[in-house]
Amino acid sequence: MTRRAIDLAEAGRGRVSPSPLVGCVVVSNDGEIVGEGAYIFSEVTHAEIYALNEAGERARGGTAYVSLEPHAHHGRTPPCTEALIKAGIKRVVCPMEDPNPLVSGKGFQELESAGIEVVRGILKDVAEKQNEKFICWHRNRRPFVHLKSAMSVDGRVATKTGDSKWITSASARQYGQQLRYEYDAILVGADTVRADDPALTDRTGKPRDRDLLRVVLDSSLRTDPGSRVVSTAPEHPTLFVAGSEGESKAEEIRGSGAEVAVIQGGPRNVSVVLDELYTRQITSVIVEGGPSVAGSFVESGLVDKFTFFLAPKIIGGEAAPAAIGGEGPSALTEAIGLRDMTFELVGPDLMITAYPSE
Amino acid sequence: MTRRAIDLAEAGRGRVSPSPLVGCVVVSNDGEIVGEGAYIFSEVTHAEIYALNEAGERARGGTAYVSLEPHAHHGRTPPCTEALIKAGIKRVVCPMEDPNPLVSGKGFQELESAGIEVVRGILKDVAEKQNEKFICWHRNRRPFVHLKSAMSVDGRVATKTGDSKWITSASARQYGQQLRYEYDAILVGADTVRADDPALTDRTGKPRDRDLLRVVLDSSLRTDPGSRVVSTAPEHPTLFVAGSEGESKAEEIRGSGAEVAVIQGGPRNVSVVLDELYTRQITSVIVEGGPSVAGSFVESGLVDKFTFFLAPKIIGGEAAPAAIGGEGPSALTEAIGLRDMTFELVGPDLMITAYPSE
Repeated sequence: MTRRAIDLAEAGRGRVSPSPLVGCVVVSNDGEIVGEGAYIFSEVTHAEIYALNEAGERARGGTAYVSLEPHAHHGRTPPCTEALIKAGIKRVVCPMEDPNPLVSGKGFQELESAGIEVVRGILKDVAEKQNEKFICWHRNRRPFVHLKSAMSVDGRVATKTGDSKWITSASARQYGQQLRYEYDAILVGADTVRADDPALTDRTGKPRDRDLLRVVLDSSLRTDPGSRVVSTAPEHPTLFVAGSEGESKAEEIRGSGAEVAVIQGGPRNVSVVLDELYTRQITSVIVEGGPSVAGSFVESGLVDKFTFFLAPKIIGGEAAPAAIGGEGPSALTEAIGLRDMTFELVGPDLMITAYPSE
Repeated sequence: MTRRAIDLAEAGRGRVSPSPLVGCVVVSNDGEIVGEGAYIFSEVTHAEIYALNEAGERARGGTAYVSLEPHAHHGRTPPCTEALIKAGIKRVVCPMEDPNPLVSGKGFQELESAGIEVVRGILKDVAEKQNEKFICWHRNRRPFVHLKSAMSVDGRVATKTGDSKWITSASARQYGQQLRYEYDAILVGADTVRADDPALTDRTGKPRDRDLLRVVLDSSLRTDPGSRVVSTAPEHPTLFVAGSEGESKAEEIRGSGAEVAVIQGGPRNVSVVLDELYTRQITSVIVEGGPSVAGSFVESGLVDKFTFFLAPKIIGGEAAPAAIGGEGPSALTEAIGLRDMTFELVGPDLMITAYPSE
């Protein structure tokens, strides 16, 4: 039943930021599912409340399965703990605590003080993975960083002359759009804007509660004001991150409708870039940059998740750019180890997803 | 039952060169398996003969399932067609013709002339894949070329300083040994010998009918005479392929016990290298070279199969060598397309196997 609560929470995917995904199932005293709910940010109402409302009097003496610790504080809504207590729930089964250090554990405490039995930890890994963005945002006080790259089997993102359209299939690119849908921001470097003139938009057509923020790392703000990303800034929120060397051009970019953040050390300073996004309540960012941006993110050690699409082709050639540039380590022992590597075919392309070790 | 014949043939894997893998099942008139056999080069006797001998009189009126067309000529043994006819077999089921243009189809003709029904084509793809080396050798008059590379997920075979031991796991390296076992020759470049001083031997401990030929492409024969490959030449057959610029050093290398072939255009001329191996009855070669050798093989268009081991790690860095070097194409449309891409985990590493398109 915990699994069902987790599955229900998926209804909110892409539609809960900066809140977590939450699903709830209420089972009556005689073992029947009497209420279900999922959280969606724009609907305000929490999953528990939907489920309790549906259950009505049948919740009394029953069990609530909730995918995340119910909140005990007054936010946009009254505490869910209060609602669970009032409804006469006798037992709450919940895989994980709220990662927000300000409230973590308080929901469980309040329920237990009211005499409700709390069962913790079932399917904890699954629940934590589901809310990996939300957890990172609270624990690390920065957005969850997902690096995505499309390359040939031999790791190249373009030929030696820069030909890169398209390495992967339409299916893989569509999957990439779905990833954009699930993130608050997309980030690339000025090189990518210059080479591809991308729109950097979410074209899934699915409803978003927050617009996708387009972030361009551009130290000296040399991006062409006629580029697609600049010219569409009035319709799509756009943030240029520059170094002090870009300051002189900031006004022109701002005039287009895009925002400019000039940060210390410039945009190669990944942790300051993420600080900047954190202050804007960006809980997650998908990095689709070229080799140089990918290299600086990898070297910063601040990538939380990797997705590589490997197309069934070999590009080769010493001068063809590889997916991850930058300085790179000297010793193999300094390479980034990956864990929980999974793979599946997306159209003809192989999608590899993994997390950094530790 | 054709599948069973194909499976039986696997008993000879690594032990049939320069002949094909062949398995045979004889089924009696009343549907019982009465004889089975597989070919192994050193045993001389053909699969059909083993199966017929086991069946004895019960073969009369029965069906023989053979994974490859029975031979009709006098080779190391009398024709198997003759034996099948003599045994009173009424029907032969066989997925494919012998690819040797000198004998192709003649076995079937002879059987049919004797009034035996011949059923062709069942599981043809499976049977052809099983004998892909033998087919290539006869059809293209050159060895089957299998390029193998071990790299990080991002396509690097070493760090920028050349640290490459070990990118992949012990399991993947063990699997690599098994591949060596199945090939007549292993080929690397002088760079690999200099960087890793490898033994280039088959360390599976399995019985081989032919020693693994170690081939080193070394234009100017600058390989250190103290290297492992040179110093072990008396025990393991070794061939250096040089260009005319290496001629002056040929005597020294020959003195070690290794052979030297000086070829026109030097060892970058892949098709001449393969000609050289063809004349030595090498039916298959596994290329484990570094970026430069891999690049020249890929560019020659003469690679028949690719196996990549991808370790769950990211190396990155602009200067870290990628798996496939060389010139590389300008346009993406000139990249080598891959078909029948399959993948599986070998220990923690992802093994990708594929064939070039067309």
